[in-house]
Amino acid sequence: MKLMLIKILPLFLGGFLFAQTKADSLQFKRISDEMLVNGTAYENLRTLTKNIGHRLSGSEAYEKSTDWAVQKLKEAGADKVWKEEVMVPVWERGKQSLHIKTQNGKWKPLRMLSLGNSEGTKGKDVEAEIIFVKNKTEFNQLSESQVKGKIIFFNYAFDQRFIVTGQAYGDAGMYRRSAASWAGKKGAKAVIIRSLSSAFDDVPHTGAMRYDKDDTTKIPAVAIGPKSADELEKTLKTQKVFAKLNSNCTMKGEKLSHSVIGEITGNKDQSVIVVGGHLDSWDVGEGAHDDGAGIVQSIEILRTFKKLGIKNNHTIRVVCFANEENGVRGGNKYAENIQKNNEKHIFAIESDGGGFTPRGIALVMSPEKRKEVQSWRNLFLPYGIHNFEFQYAGADIEPMEKLGIPLAELVPDSQRYFDIHHTEEDTFEKVNRRELLLGAVAMGQLIYMVDKSW
Amino acid sequence: MKLMLIKILPLFLGGFLFAQTKADSLQFKRISDEMLVNGTAYENLRTLTKNIGHRLSGSEAYEKSTDWAVQKLKEAGADKVWKEEVMVPVWERGKQSLHIKTQNGKWKPLRMLSLGNSEGTKGKDVEAEIIFVKNKTEFNQLSESQVKGKIIFFNYAFDQRFIVTGQAYGDAGMYRRSAASWAGKKGAKAVIIRSLSSAFDDVPHTGAMRYDKDDTTKIPAVAIGPKSADELEKTLKTQKVFAKLNSNCTMKGEKLSHSVIGEITGNKDQSVIVVGGHLDSWDVGEGAHDDGAGIVQSIEILRTFKKLGIKNNHTIRVVCFANEENGVRGGNKYAENIQKNNEKHIFAIESDGGGFTPRGIALVMSPEKRKEVQSWRNLFLPYGIHNFEFQYAGADIEPMEKLGIPLAELVPDSQRYFDIHHTEEDTFEKVNRRELLLGAVAMGQLIYMVDKSW
Repeated sequence: MKLMLIKILPLFLGGFLFAQTKADSLQFKRISDEMLVNGTAYENLRTLTKNIGHRLSGSEAYEKSTDWAVQKLKEAGADKVWKEEVMVPVWERGKQSLHIKTQNGKWKPLRMLSLGNSEGTKGKDVEAEIIFVKNKTEFNQLSESQVKGKIIFFNYAFDQRFIVTGQAYGDAGMYRRSAASWAGKKGAKAVIIRSLSSAFDDVPHTGAMRYDKDDTTKIPAVAIGPKSADELEKTLKTQKVFAKLNSNCTMKGEKLSHSVIGEITGNKDQSVIVVGGHLDSWDVGEGAHDDGAGIVQSIEILRTFKKLGIKNNHTIRVVCFANEENGVRGGNKYAENIQKNNEKHIFAIESDGGGFTPRGIALVMSPEKRKEVQSWRNLFLPYGIHNFEFQYAGADIEPMEKLGIPLAELVPDSQRYFDIHHTEEDTFEKVNRRELLLGAVAMGQLIYMVDKSW
Repeated sequence: MKLMLIKILPLFLGGFLFAQTKADSLQFKRISDEMLVNGTAYENLRTLTKNIGHRLSGSEAYEKSTDWAVQKLKEAGADKVWKEEVMVPVWERGKQSLHIKTQNGKWKPLRMLSLGNSEGTKGKDVEAEIIFVKNKTEFNQLSESQVKGKIIFFNYAFDQRFIVTGQAYGDAGMYRRSAASWAGKKGAKAVIIRSLSSAFDDVPHTGAMRYDKDDTTKIPAVAIGPKSADELEKTLKTQKVFAKLNSNCTMKGEKLSHSVIGEITGNKDQSVIVVGGHLDSWDVGEGAHDDGAGIVQSIEILRTFKKLGIKNNHTIRVVCFANEENGVRGGNKYAENIQKNNEKHIFAIESDGGGFTPRGIALVMSPEKRKEVQSWRNLFLPYGIHNFEFQYAGADIEPMEKLGIPLAELVPDSQRYFDIHHTEEDTFEKVNRRELLLGAVAMGQLIYMVDKSW
């Protein structure tokens, strides 16, 4: 009798698990079919990018995009939609130009972009000799007298050897972020950096820089494209080159703005699952991959749960965060508010790596939860989602980590992202409908699993 | 003593395997670094697509491309380069136009492409009423009298629910291939098919059709874009629509042409490993993804083995096959010749799925060999190559299957391919440098493993 029990139990359990897996796998397919056939994410991205375009937080366009988000969340069937107040920095680019010339040459314009949050030249020409360094080590070897009164040019290239381009971006990131303060403290007039780009074109990339707290100089920082950078380095090896920078960019205090939130109410309890992206973008291009994609994917998930009548246990909440690009104020405010209001959150996922074919989900959570998510891997494999190894989460949801909330980020294929990231080329045309929707599929499927399991 | 031996052996073997894996992993990285940093595949693709452009076999452009391939193989360091003779069909598109009108309406042009290998109207207007069917089942229900003298419009759409788009392509493929003979045999004047496209635009896709052996009618077959197809179906639901087709396309016999072959000689023996793609393309666009990508990736592998001084045991041979698109004559001839010359081949791999980020390797080989390749999976994972489950090989190397040669095909991400496949949009601009090179990396790494193991 005992022997029989032992034999039956695993069979019974196996049968249960098999039936369970089969039901999950059918639900995965329902979500996928609905999005790939009837998904509205791509058309929503078209109206966001083409009717509104880029939308730096603090701008009029950003405020327009909050109205757009409210409308799209309502259309998707949200039970409740609201705006969450948040103070954001107001940075304005204004006019900008950079010219270079050799000793006896003529001024030649270079394609450039002031870095976000940078101060400008207040509309005056700032002229100086360019001093070239390859990297921080070379810069550190320069004495103050070698830097003083000069414009320092950092030509640190994206390391093409990284397979995941985000790692190359991380590797080169400090030059955009910090070079101005390094050089300012040694008396430089401005810095020019090589764009953080995986491409070999001449497109300049903007992006956030910051001044060190003890940096009182706040010198201007601008980026040039890879081609211009290579040519400039080459010229500087044989002769002196001078630069003339003129820019109006400046920080203009703060302003009241909003994140946009929509949700479908939980059927079992009111604890919250967040899915989101950031609604703001840099002030060039159309903010299509960064991060229009994450916004329309998140709305797509809400629409699909509603349309399929999936009875979610917990509240599923779409958060369109304000001000990721130059302050992360939306993300910080959201975490602050849920703590203040004592709102229980069981999970948050963000999509902010572009609307490219998804390949995995990055996880920031306890080892136990991590293992549990990884145990669902076979359900995801038919959708091309194979990598659950990365450990990072989107900047907007990161502030929730200290509250002990399990976090995740969609991991799209990374090869094309840093060709267009923070540039004029980040447009709707660069987004593929199916790739975009498959990102929503993967996140929707994960939310379905989390909702029924946690 | 026995116990000790048993314990030591696995330890020793484990250490050996670990050292071996480490050496392989270092070689994988050398191949990857060399290609991503110094790779010439992208610039080679630029000259192939921009200086020569599309190159249907039998055309002058195709012959130019064979000279280009000879030169590029020499530049890459091939020990030996030659052209292999092959007779190819000569199909010419000529002029083509399709107009439609409702009963009392005016003629309106539709964007269209004659299907490859199709006969035309010999330059005369062929007018008839359009009869719409959704699929083959609906067509089979039509009587001869309902089809006779009409132009049949098959509007079978790409099934968006497939995750791997090649499966949707396979599902819809028979309409392009066979609809003309189905309809011709029932007395139709021509067929219009909806393009095999994953996009929702209005771009027509060409591609090979064929007439059944018992089809003496050989009626013209043309493709229209998805948008036109949807609009036409909509109109046909409420009123009669007439079409006027005029086209000159026709098959003009055969012609002597060439595949192009280059190799680096084996250091241990002369048995051959083939890596290739097809040099011909359809006569629209630039044949960039299909299959310029496969050609330049294959040449890249030869260049990299030579540059890194990898001592290949076996001969590594790049084959740029002629006439894949409308005859597969190059592939058939190659298999015929190696059999005739009794040339031992141990492996062949093709890239003909576009120059997109690689995700896996499809395998056609014995279960034992298959398992062996799959046992190398961990070496490939850092490069994003995770899927070794598919069982298919490129059309050009398929004829080698009956010779018992293990075959493989690169599996790139499939989401964007069928938006542009066989269209004017298959241009260099649609190819990303890193994605293209990563395909070469994966194939180069696999060839390294096969070369040392088989």
